[in-house]
Amino acid sequence: MHIAILTFEGFNELDSLIALGVLNRAAPKLRVSLATPTPQVTSMNGVTLQGHITLEDAAGADAVLVGSGIQTRTIIQDAAMMARLQLDPARQLIAAQCSGALILAKLGLLSHGEACTDLTTAPWLQALGIRPLQTPLHVQGSIATAGGCLASVYLAGWLISRLIDEPATAAALHYMAPVGEKESYVAHALALLRQADAGQQVVS
Amino acid sequence: MHIAILTFEGFNELDSLIALGVLNRAAPKLRVSLATPTPQVTSMNGVTLQGHITLEDAAGADAVLVGSGIQTRTIIQDAAMMARLQLDPARQLIAAQCSGALILAKLGLLSHGEACTDLTTAPWLQALGIRPLQTPLHVQGSIATAGGCLASVYLAGWLISRLIDEPATAAALHYMAPVGEKESYVAHALALLRQADAGQQVVS
Repeated sequence: MHIAILTFEGFNELDSLIALGVLNRAAPKLRVSLATPTPQVTSMNGVTLQGHITLEDAAGADAVLVGSGIQTRTIIQDAAMMARLQLDPARQLIAAQCSGALILAKLGLLSHGEACTDLTTAPWLQALGIRPLQTPLHVQGSIATAGGCLASVYLAGWLISRLIDEPATAAALHYMAPVGEKESYVAHALALLRQADAGQQVVS
Repeated sequence: MHIAILTFEGFNELDSLIALGVLNRAAPKLRVSLATPTPQVTSMNGVTLQGHITLEDAAGADAVLVGSGIQTRTIIQDAAMMARLQLDPARQLIAAQCSGALILAKLGLLSHGEACTDLTTAPWLQALGIRPLQTPLHVQGSIATAGGCLASVYLAGWLISRLIDEPATAAALHYMAPVGEKESYVAHALALLRQADAGQQVVS
């Protein structure tokens, strides 16, 4: 199964690359690609990396994770750029990290009216008519949103659980977690994922 | 102040880039560079990025963070590569993430005989005569080691505390933490950093 991580100019390294690292723990069952608007993109902190696939290619992925960055508000005003994003929650899992929720809102994918995002993005999401939640992860059907860079671990964990199973998520998170904190971290994350996936309000 | 993150071929994205993201929250007081052996390096999961400075340039940094990756055991056998690393704990803070501890061991910088590392690296560190600890972060003077990808947040937090102050660390960690978990995450991390910096065994 193939997961595309949409990574734009000005991207937040944490939001695209924590997810990439976690998801790759489930390789080879999962294949992960950075989908970028241009062959190279440079992050908000000046890290230049090469994309693997185009934004258009993400239409063929089994899951799409929309990364965050400092230019998302500009991107959603760019009709040509937005037209390149052909996401379909009927056949794809769709996940958005932090300001990625603005892109889902603009694409009309948050019709349920609420989403997780970061504290900076929250007022801009509200301006698009979507209520920002005070929780790390929200799931509605095949669409998940997460807020706060480190919640990208939960978002990637949700994708692994949906695409493979919970033991695969537990194994990926165990690898990532700090030594000496692995058991408590994994237990916390799995409980949170179960709550979110059951459509419950996540209480951390 | 300038922090160089040593990032080798086969690097772990999480270990180099979580630290970079956290440290950049303290910009412009801190400037962060990826120091690479070649102009481009490709990660363990196929992410190709451009370095900012050379390995030799790291000798001039105020702090050096040694990233991790899948080739560290090969790197420490490469005398020419190791000769490029001129680290000086008398005038630099030195931090190592996961298998980065092997590089510090080989450079003779772990003469206190113990360090944090990841579970995979632990036996190899032991083979170099250094005792792997079952904790996320260990500090001895100007040298810190961390184990488990997400402990890179603690390692970066330690650098911010030493180079600026604890409120700057708290602000950086607050930004990063998941929405809804920010207060608990920051409190936990600061307590852990204080314990580690006091040379106490960290109890998570």
